[in-house]
Amino acid sequence: MQRSWWGWGNVSDAVRGAERDALVARVRGLLPDADLTPHDPPDVASLHVPAPRVAPPASLAGLCTTDAEDRLAHARGQAYRDVARNLAGDLGEVPDLVVRPRSEQDIVDVLDWCARDGIAVVPFGGGTSVVGGVEPRLGDAYPGVVTLDLERLDRVLEVDRTSRAARIQAGVLGPALEEQLRPHELTLRHFPQSSGAGPSPDRLFLGSEGTLGVITEAWMRLQDRPRWRVQASVHFRDYGEAVAATRAVAQSGLYPANCRLLDPAEAFLNAATSTTGGVLVLAFESADHPVDPWLARAVELCKDHGGSVPSYEDEGPDAAGSWRSAFLRMPYQRDVMAQHAMIAETFETACTWDRFEQLHTAVTAAATEAIREVCGVGVVTCRFTHVYPDGPAPYFGVYAPGRWGSLVSQWDEIKAAVSDALIANGGTITHHHAVGRDHRPWYDRQRPGVFAAALTGAKRALDPAGILNPGVLIDPAGA
Amino acid sequence: MQRSWWGWGNVSDAVRGAERDALVARVRGLLPDADLTPHDPPDVASLHVPAPRVAPPASLAGLCTTDAEDRLAHARGQAYRDVARNLAGDLGEVPDLVVRPRSEQDIVDVLDWCARDGIAVVPFGGGTSVVGGVEPRLGDAYPGVVTLDLERLDRVLEVDRTSRAARIQAGVLGPALEEQLRPHELTLRHFPQSSGAGPSPDRLFLGSEGTLGVITEAWMRLQDRPRWRVQASVHFRDYGEAVAATRAVAQSGLYPANCRLLDPAEAFLNAATSTTGGVLVLAFESADHPVDPWLARAVELCKDHGGSVPSYEDEGPDAAGSWRSAFLRMPYQRDVMAQHAMIAETFETACTWDRFEQLHTAVTAAATEAIREVCGVGVVTCRFTHVYPDGPAPYFGVYAPGRWGSLVSQWDEIKAAVSDALIANGGTITHHHAVGRDHRPWYDRQRPGVFAAALTGAKRALDPAGILNPGVLIDPAGA
Repeated sequence: MQRSWWGWGNVSDAVRGAERDALVARVRGLLPDADLTPHDPPDVASLHVPAPRVAPPASLAGLCTTDAEDRLAHARGQAYRDVARNLAGDLGEVPDLVVRPRSEQDIVDVLDWCARDGIAVVPFGGGTSVVGGVEPRLGDAYPGVVTLDLERLDRVLEVDRTSRAARIQAGVLGPALEEQLRPHELTLRHFPQSSGAGPSPDRLFLGSEGTLGVITEAWMRLQDRPRWRVQASVHFRDYGEAVAATRAVAQSGLYPANCRLLDPAEAFLNAATSTTGGVLVLAFESADHPVDPWLARAVELCKDHGGSVPSYEDEGPDAAGSWRSAFLRMPYQRDVMAQHAMIAETFETACTWDRFEQLHTAVTAAATEAIREVCGVGVVTCRFTHVYPDGPAPYFGVYAPGRWGSLVSQWDEIKAAVSDALIANGGTITHHHAVGRDHRPWYDRQRPGVFAAALTGAKRALDPAGILNPGVLIDPAGA
Repeated sequence: MQRSWWGWGNVSDAVRGAERDALVARVRGLLPDADLTPHDPPDVASLHVPAPRVAPPASLAGLCTTDAEDRLAHARGQAYRDVARNLAGDLGEVPDLVVRPRSEQDIVDVLDWCARDGIAVVPFGGGTSVVGGVEPRLGDAYPGVVTLDLERLDRVLEVDRTSRAARIQAGVLGPALEEQLRPHELTLRHFPQSSGAGPSPDRLFLGSEGTLGVITEAWMRLQDRPRWRVQASVHFRDYGEAVAATRAVAQSGLYPANCRLLDPAEAFLNAATSTTGGVLVLAFESADHPVDPWLARAVELCKDHGGSVPSYEDEGPDAAGSWRSAFLRMPYQRDVMAQHAMIAETFETACTWDRFEQLHTAVTAAATEAIREVCGVGVVTCRFTHVYPDGPAPYFGVYAPGRWGSLVSQWDEIKAAVSDALIANGGTITHHHAVGRDHRPWYDRQRPGVFAAALTGAKRALDPAGILNPGVLIDPAGA
């Protein structure tokens, strides 16, 4: 299929014949006095596209083209003003070369060449920018301009059926992407656009932990106070089945208000409930409509995975209520346990569903082994504090007898062991507890280097004196 | 209520008496050999907290305290290791002063003083960091450390009932916040935590439009292919009622797969449907469960706002299907219209619900006036491409006869007029079309200055040669 150099999409799909006549007739009906004389697009040969000002090194020549029509097709995007200028034969600035890398290494090589020679680089994905995003408008500020067309990076590299995610190359077009996902019975089901208005200012400051400035106020999304609320506690005989049930609910599109899986130890300690596989606490709420059908479907999903909902008569007070009461007292209880020389602390993470079993096994083993070495005996618990379609946020508890005078060093030893295990098994060093100073060593391993550089650049610009929460997240400027 | 300087929450809520006995008994049951001898927290007077190393300027002295217990209470967060160190009388580093600003100006003054004198500043919100986030661990790298406690910034400053949002000061605690929201029958309904693992790397690169690097691949969230799908087209007699109905659906928690309001002109031009108030195209889909009850409730909400669902017999082909077919042909039709010297272009924005009516009126007026001046006659349409609980993303269409040879300058004049009107009426310069070069002047007005500085700092760090899509979003380094 040949793509149009001056307008939208494929030449063979253009509006012509009866469709064109009907369209023009509709426009004439709407605007009877309009001059609707048609104009053909100019011949490319007649446009005298200027010769390229730069040449690639021999090693990159095979990726590059200087074809005039190809360069014109990359000179602008797909806004009306782009099409109108193309139709009028108004060239503007045309890239000197179009480069089509086949790999990340090709891109590195192209960028190295351009950085060395000061050549501007315009990345080009679908090429449908309607805001002048792929158009060089540089005058003679640069010796040349290269358009980096990603169309050869068009593959789905990896599919994670369990977490419902795929690793997708940046140059793939929607239909070709869906074709690659279809054999997996998966779909993107939305249409990513260029972006909003630039990178998100909120997301740079959220989580900056006082290192970039002081957040003094924010507009926050609110909810109407719920009028309908239903809940259930689902018991499981097998923890693996409980996890599978929780994933099914998280991926169902039912949007529970609460979906918290307690493992058997957590359910026993804090919800006074004995099970062999744990308890899933479920709740739905709404200010708009009764939500019983939502809960019914979620419970049905749990039953498909071996869950059961005991009647209150059998079980005494419900697990959800007991757990909520215990939750509110936990930090106060922690203080008393510390006074009695007990180690009582939590740590948390997030991972994708496909990695949870391995992570849970490895982290529990690391915690158990560290407790054995440091304290002799102890208990490790796990609950999910949050679940997403992509994965859970597991939250672990550690309870063990410490030695008065050595509590901090004992805990630090356990913490280091479990943090290593989290990072080694695909977990994040934190889901919502933040980084601070304590998580710095593992955050430094987890955070992409290129983002560390960006963050350091941002901090230098905003906090030149380096006084804002020094040492949190990144080192202060000059350190 | 007195807060504990060494442990959690309020002194009066501590675990004591029978609750404490029961807790210790449970621990003993779990770990029979543990030494559970209790230890009392140390007297503050016995701890010899060092004297402050810095003194505030007289103008800020009224905001500052050097009280030893207050400084200790701000020396660390609420992790187990914090409590254990407090109990052991292990002081660590204690801030020299605690400052409690009453306003943003107070904060500016404090930061100015500290930047001038090189004093470290630790922002302090709820003070519940469990990761060493509020703890100075600076040795003698700074002449002093000030903790900036935001507790006096504890008010809800503004409530937008229509968009369900509030402007909230950063120092308010959860219960006090809910108390202020309750008279409005609103609730936050979630519990914001410190953060994830630092600011979001993805959100810095998403929308960076090739100015910071080249995105080569990404893990993307997928969906199971839907098995159930239902849809309806709801007709309205009054556009204001149609907007209210759309807002009700967007805020209902029903999560429609499609919720697209076409104004009467858009419905007529592209869905061949005549109404006085427009058409709301609704769809629900799921891979997990039938969604008829979801659609039924959404239609009910629409009927509460004057909507009606005509039977197919009355209306011929459904509006949703007609509109979808038209949508796919639109860019091809645009090319033909350009060939016939028609101006046919769109622009889009996002706003909160409370601002939509004014924005719609003002932008439509600006577009109409500009069309009148530039083209004589023409049509302006509006649809919502996306809706959120907070507000819609209105998408406008402009169709007018142009003059061959002047199409671009004619459109540019209209575009400038509507862009000014968008920014002046609380809209963003783009919802999903991005910034590029065309939106730069308005993006520069919309983007916070402090974020421009951060972005420039990040670009300098990542693209020192200034070659990456120069001029998009921000000026290249050195320009």
